[in-house]
Amino acid sequence: MSTFLPPTLLGQTVAQPQSPEEARLERVPNPHPGTLYLTRFTAPEFTSLCPVTGQPDFAHLVIDYVADGWLVESKALKLYLTSFRNHGAFHEDCTVRIGKDIVALLEPRWLRIGGYWYPRGGIPIDVFWQTGTPPEGLWLPDQGVPPYRGRG
Amino acid sequence: MSTFLPPTLLGQTVAQPQSPEEARLERVPNPHPGTLYLTRFTAPEFTSLCPVTGQPDFAHLVIDYVADGWLVESKALKLYLTSFRNHGAFHEDCTVRIGKDIVALLEPRWLRIGGYWYPRGGIPIDVFWQTGTPPEGLWLPDQGVPPYRGRG
Amino acid sequence: MSTFLPPTLLGQTVAQPQSPEEARLERVPNPHPGTLYLTRFTAPEFTSLCPVTGQPDFAHLVIDYVADGWLVESKALKLYLTSFRNHGAFHEDCTVRIGKDIVALLEPRWLRIGGYWYPRGGIPIDVFWQTGTPPEGLWLPDQGVPPYRGRG
Amino acid sequence: MSTFLPPTLLGQTVAQPQSPEEARLERVPNPHPGTLYLTRFTAPEFTSLCPVTGQPDFAHLVIDYVADGWLVESKALKLYLTSFRNHGAFHEDCTVRIGKDIVALLEPRWLRIGGYWYPRGGIPIDVFWQTGTPPEGLWLPDQGVPPYRGRG
Amino acid sequence: MSTFLPPTLLGQTVAQPQSPEEARLERVPNPHPGTLYLTRFTAPEFTSLCPVTGQPDFAHLVIDYVADGWLVESKALKLYLTSFRNHGAFHEDCTVRIGKDIVALLEPRWLRIGGYWYPRGGIPIDVFWQTGTPPEGLWLPDQGVPPYRGRG
Amino acid sequence: MSTFLPPTLLGQTVAQPQSPEEARLERVPNPHPGTLYLTRFTAPEFTSLCPVTGQPDFAHLVIDYVADGWLVESKALKLYLTSFRNHGAFHEDCTVRIGKDIVALLEPRWLRIGGYWYPRGGIPIDVFWQTGTPPEGLWLPDQGVPPYRGRG
Amino acid sequence: MSTFLPPTLLGQTVAQPQSPEEARLERVPNPHPGTLYLTRFTAPEFTSLCPVTGQPDFAHLVIDYVADGWLVESKALKLYLTSFRNHGAFHEDCTVRIGKDIVALLEPRWLRIGGYWYPRGGIPIDVFWQTGTPPEGLWLPDQGVPPYRGRG
Amino acid sequence: MSTFLPPTLLGQTVAQPQSPEEARLERVPNPHPGTLYLTRFTAPEFTSLCPVTGQPDFAHLVIDYVADGWLVESKALKLYLTSFRNHGAFHEDCTVRIGKDIVALLEPRWLRIGGYWYPRGGIPIDVFWQTGTPPEGLWLPDQGVPPYRGRG
Amino acid sequence: MSTFLPPTLLGQTVAQPQSPEEARLERVPNPHPGTLYLTRFTAPEFTSLCPVTGQPDFAHLVIDYVADGWLVESKALKLYLTSFRNHGAFHEDCTVRIGKDIVALLEPRWLRIGGYWYPRGGIPIDVFWQTGTPPEGLWLPDQGVPPYRGRG
Amino acid sequence: MSTFLPPTLLGQTVAQPQSPEEARLERVPNPHPGTLYLTRFTAPEFTSLCPVTGQPDFAHLVIDYVADGWLVESKALKLYLTSFRNHGAFHEDCTVRIGKDIVALLEPRWLRIGGYWYPRGGIPIDVFWQTGTPPEGLWLPDQGVPPYRGRG
Ligand SMILES: [Ca+2]
Ligand SMILES: [Ca+2]
Ligand SMILES: [Ca+2]
Ligand SMILES: [Ca+2]
Ligand SMILES: [Ca+2]
Ligand SMILES: [Ca+2]
Ligand SMILES: [Ca+2]
Ligand SMILES: [Ca+2]
Ligand SMILES: [Ca+2]
Ligand SMILES: [Ca+2]
Ligand SMILES: [Ca+2]
Ligand SMILES: [Ca+2]
Ligand SMILES: [Ca+2]
Ligand SMILES: [Ca+2]
Ligand SMILES: [Ca+2]
Ligand SMILES: [Ca+2]
Repeated sequence: MSTFLPPTLLGQTVAQPQSPEEARLERVPNPHPGTLYLTRFTAPEFTSLCPVTGQPDFAHLVIDYVADGWLVESKALKLYLTSFRNHGAFHEDCTVRIGKDIVALLEPRWLRIGGYWYPRGGIPIDVFWQTGTPPEGLWLPDQGVPPYRGRG
Repeated sequence: MSTFLPPTLLGQTVAQPQSPEEARLERVPNPHPGTLYLTRFTAPEFTSLCPVTGQPDFAHLVIDYVADGWLVESKALKLYLTSFRNHGAFHEDCTVRIGKDIVALLEPRWLRIGGYWYPRGGIPIDVFWQTGTPPEGLWLPDQGVPPYRGRG
Repeated sequence: MSTFLPPTLLGQTVAQPQSPEEARLERVPNPHPGTLYLTRFTAPEFTSLCPVTGQPDFAHLVIDYVADGWLVESKALKLYLTSFRNHGAFHEDCTVRIGKDIVALLEPRWLRIGGYWYPRGGIPIDVFWQTGTPPEGLWLPDQGVPPYRGRG
Repeated sequence: MSTFLPPTLLGQTVAQPQSPEEARLERVPNPHPGTLYLTRFTAPEFTSLCPVTGQPDFAHLVIDYVADGWLVESKALKLYLTSFRNHGAFHEDCTVRIGKDIVALLEPRWLRIGGYWYPRGGIPIDVFWQTGTPPEGLWLPDQGVPPYRGRG
Repeated sequence: MSTFLPPTLLGQTVAQPQSPEEARLERVPNPHPGTLYLTRFTAPEFTSLCPVTGQPDFAHLVIDYVADGWLVESKALKLYLTSFRNHGAFHEDCTVRIGKDIVALLEPRWLRIGGYWYPRGGIPIDVFWQTGTPPEGLWLPDQGVPPYRGRG
Repeated sequence: MSTFLPPTLLGQTVAQPQSPEEARLERVPNPHPGTLYLTRFTAPEFTSLCPVTGQPDFAHLVIDYVADGWLVESKALKLYLTSFRNHGAFHEDCTVRIGKDIVALLEPRWLRIGGYWYPRGGIPIDVFWQTGTPPEGLWLPDQGVPPYRGRG
Repeated sequence: MSTFLPPTLLGQTVAQPQSPEEARLERVPNPHPGTLYLTRFTAPEFTSLCPVTGQPDFAHLVIDYVADGWLVESKALKLYLTSFRNHGAFHEDCTVRIGKDIVALLEPRWLRIGGYWYPRGGIPIDVFWQTGTPPEGLWLPDQGVPPYRGRG
Repeated sequence: MSTFLPPTLLGQTVAQPQSPEEARLERVPNPHPGTLYLTRFTAPEFTSLCPVTGQPDFAHLVIDYVADGWLVESKALKLYLTSFRNHGAFHEDCTVRIGKDIVALLEPRWLRIGGYWYPRGGIPIDVFWQTGTPPEGLWLPDQGVPPYRGRG
Repeated sequence: MSTFLPPTLLGQTVAQPQSPEEARLERVPNPHPGTLYLTRFTAPEFTSLCPVTGQPDFAHLVIDYVADGWLVESKALKLYLTSFRNHGAFHEDCTVRIGKDIVALLEPRWLRIGGYWYPRGGIPIDVFWQTGTPPEGLWLPDQGVPPYRGRG
Repeated sequence: MSTFLPPTLLGQTVAQPQSPEEARLERVPNPHPGTLYLTRFTAPEFTSLCPVTGQPDFAHLVIDYVADGWLVESKALKLYLTSFRNHGAFHEDCTVRIGKDIVALLEPRWLRIGGYWYPRGGIPIDVFWQTGTPPEGLWLPDQGVPPYRGRG
């Protein structure tokens, strides 16, 4: 993944990157740089591949972060997430890596990512990572994704 | 499965039958034989085995029937359902077979069974069978089991 | 059960009847006798006894009826339902009997009762009875009681 | 209740009528007089008085109708419903009467009203009335008000 | 898509087909060929490509059918659905085509498919197709997928 | 509204039309012209103006139709719906008019529209219109929008 | 409001007080005076008047308190809440005042009140007040009233 | 209530005790005595009598505790709870007393009880008691019982 | 935005301001100035414009604040929120700015705003800002807006 | 249970172990060993036997842990959980034991397990255990399993 580039995607047609390495996350200046606020992205349309079987995996991702100098540019974020479509990764690894890629781009005051994966073998895996204790004074609601329930 | 026996299970300790063949479904007289009413059993604790892999399968079963001369005895029904624990059967076959076994026992005016199976390969199977068009004048509510939703 | 008596309960303190036989269902004139409308009572506080073990059973009852000349008096209905507290009856029998007792009292154009019993042995029983096909032109919403789901 | 008056309420401050008799339901021309469509009003803020005890009763009302030449004017409808605040009426009577008042005003092609009353003595009453079988070709969704569940 | 082949996938590792044309739907004999019952598959992990922009689309698919001589083999069905991952198709076309492919394979007594697509431009599209009026006497529950609600 | 034009919007930037009269609904050929299937659009982001007060109104719209020769082009549909943003119309009128505009464009086999409006004066209005009895053999699920509940 | 009176209402018929000033809140001894426990009253049937327009307002109230020497008598509480029926008050003021009236009566160890008002102008107001930080060691569950959602 | 007796109920038929005084709560050794874990019992089938009117009351009870040397025996617990069936007690008193009875039996490290009572006079009462601040390091999920909502 | 003006809007007809700059937020004295309580406004009918494309955006806003000397006047608040209808702003910026405008008006003890935006590109953004750590002793329930779930 | 073995199960067909003693939990290296993140497994398909009656018990299990050097291998975990199928254990014991077995294998930084058992005698038991206070800075969402509600 190449990051730290000028925001060239806004209002443009861009080819879909074929891997996270090829994707370009971009950033724009935070309009409220001295203000402690949270931004949440909910991405229910995420898919990658199982690195063992090559079969598709699906996840519902929710990303929370506190901007410092930069916001993530949302169109580039979408292309970045889409670039995992043909990428093989285990659930734990993939979720944490996405969090770390955004951290590398934004150097945010704080970030967390929740990955809610679809069941395999009847047992779904959820992965929860944050960069550390949330900043004092931050308002941080639960992500509230319903638990997996099986049937009935 | 042996059926048509006197109700010997009521208030007794009975050994758990090890297969549906061994189980004894029992029947008791219908206390309202001339009345068109529906009885519903909901069995969310059903498990059998996959006939190909030997791995356990789970289902939530809902059985609706209209008694004629007989009611199914509920303790025997539970033992009968439990007897599938080590029994291998495909979802479609297992669901319909349970319905037919109870029909053979009770000769009811009408019966239906819904089998709501837990997902395999991310895709759950539901099976719905009834003995025919419901009797005219019967009150027959939806079973209302929520659809499978994956995650999110 | 004694019925067909003048409505003596309204605004009075009445001793709780100790059995359905002792209870007095009462009726009052229908204020809209020529109008085809439905009245629904929802009674989530019903309890009786298991006739085999003597242990308490619980049910959520919903009664729908179309009045002809009479409405059921609601305070007497409550006392009548409460009178099953020390009464032993099977689920199917008890549900249908309550329906028939109210039919005997009111001679309604139509009636149905749904009994949603709490699980025994992990398997709840629901009982659904109506006096026949609903009258043409009646508006009859589903009772909409959620299905039993076990856990998860 | 006086009806059939010119729509004088639109954009005006009007004193709150103190009884349904005093209230003025009003009507406006149907902008699609040859079209078979349904209008639904949901009024969760309804209260009247118990005619026996004088204590307040509360209901959630849902009114569906198919206009012929007239629509009910919505501000007058609100004032009319509010006028039951000090009016004593039994649940069955009150619900059906509101339906009939609107029918008298609008002479609609069809109307129904559902009254979902708050529990008294632990047992809520629902009342469902319609003017007859719905017109052929009408789209008429369920009102979908959740059933009363008690606790748990 | 090539169909009508012997069920060679059961218990085997198979390469993921790269397009629906390449995929092999398979069929197995219906174990209850004279019985009118419904089988439902719920596939919440479906993705294809927008034929205009090349961007991924996501859908939640629910397929109901009544077998005649054949059942669809579930592992092959999964591979077939996965083969749309790099396939471009409009929502309406894609949904109906999947239904028709399975019809061509199974020659079922009846089939329907519901495609519940994720929103684009804030407006999701759902597509509902069935092969005709359901067979008389079939039990056919609603699919019950919740409607799209936006936020709040 | 001008309709019946070639689909010029696909993949283009188009100025937002300022009124429904200015908007151009467009149509594309139905890829399954001989097949009886339903398409559903859910538009939870609709707003117009109250013709009396000029204050904004909001609605959640759901449109179901059965294509004959044409599908509605979805980007043009979105622009058309957005064009009501500064348009004054009563709830009943606005909902039915949108349905009729699409009928004029598509000459579909059948169409219905549900308008679920946000409350005014504590009482929301819903409007339901369809072009007539649905075609025989069509699968037509409920729209399932939850009823308005007030608070609690 | 007059308080601090002997509990004269238990098992008696009492005239409905016409204003909060006229109402008599009453108290009874706490049966577990040395025990730190919470009592919650949920009153979904509350109505008062808008002090500007005179139109009715509705609220769902939830009151939590920790008794010291006294419990509030529940029948008197109901009459007190009902006495706001013809009382004009703003939402914020009315909610906090009710809390303070009960505090004046009971001198509890701690109290809070949540007022969940029905929408006006499309925007509901909720008011949350407590007498201070809850006592150490108290178990204090969320009130869990669902947020207002508008439509859809 | 007599406690501290050897566990004589396991696998036996026992007469139903007629009052809490007559009931025998029993205890069994904690299989993980050095481990800080929580056990939760949910009893939605609880009923007692109003000490003033003699009418039945109903509650949904949830009991959480941290065992020290003993677990409560679950069959005896059920009989104990059932013994309140003919016992008169106010909601606050009854809930706290049950908690204290179990504390006297088990001398647990910590316990709490939530009583969610069915509405009387339209206003349900909930009672929440715990023995003190939960032990450090305990995992203690919310009980999550939905709030009472009235209707709508 | 001009603020700090006398409350001139109460009971008056006011022209809708065309931008936030033109709108006049107003304030009224806090009737409980020494009391630490929370006021919550829920505004599900918010819309603004995308500053890049000019297309409408929609949000569900929830504002919580603790008054010091002033309350926000609710009719002016509504007009202020409505004034964003033709205003272009990014989600993060718009949400935080609304919070800051109200802070400038009220100088409250504390305030927070949650902006729950409708999805764009399948990925909704939520924004959460508060002025700092909530005051000690404040009761501050979760806003409880359900998470975005996509479909299924 | 034998643990600490090389991960031999990946991509292999393995015989189902017949008891927890026979099962082989396996571990794989943590790909983010210096990162504090949580992994959650949800297993709604768990069944064991009652040690007193031999009847099947069912549970919904949710396991949360923070890896140190190792992750649990998910296919082996599934086989391990399945191995309780013919194993007799009390609810409290079984739940805690599973937690301790995984702790012995992984030596994680922290772990917790929730066991949500199906009702017996109408009263379900939930068991909650964790290894101690969660690590500072960990993000640990609620498990959110809905409480048992009985019926209604
Ligand atoms: Ca929480
Ligand atoms: Ca699976
Ligand atoms: Ca239905
Ligand atoms: Ca989903
Ligand atoms: Ca049970
Ligand atoms: Ca389940
Ligand atoms: Ca329906
Ligand atoms: Ca909405
Ligand atoms: Ca309103
Ligand atoms: Ca409103
Ligand atoms: Ca909480
Ligand atoms: Ca009540
Ligand atoms: Ca309500
Ligand atoms: Ca979108
Ligand atoms: Ca049970
Ligand atoms: Ca209940």
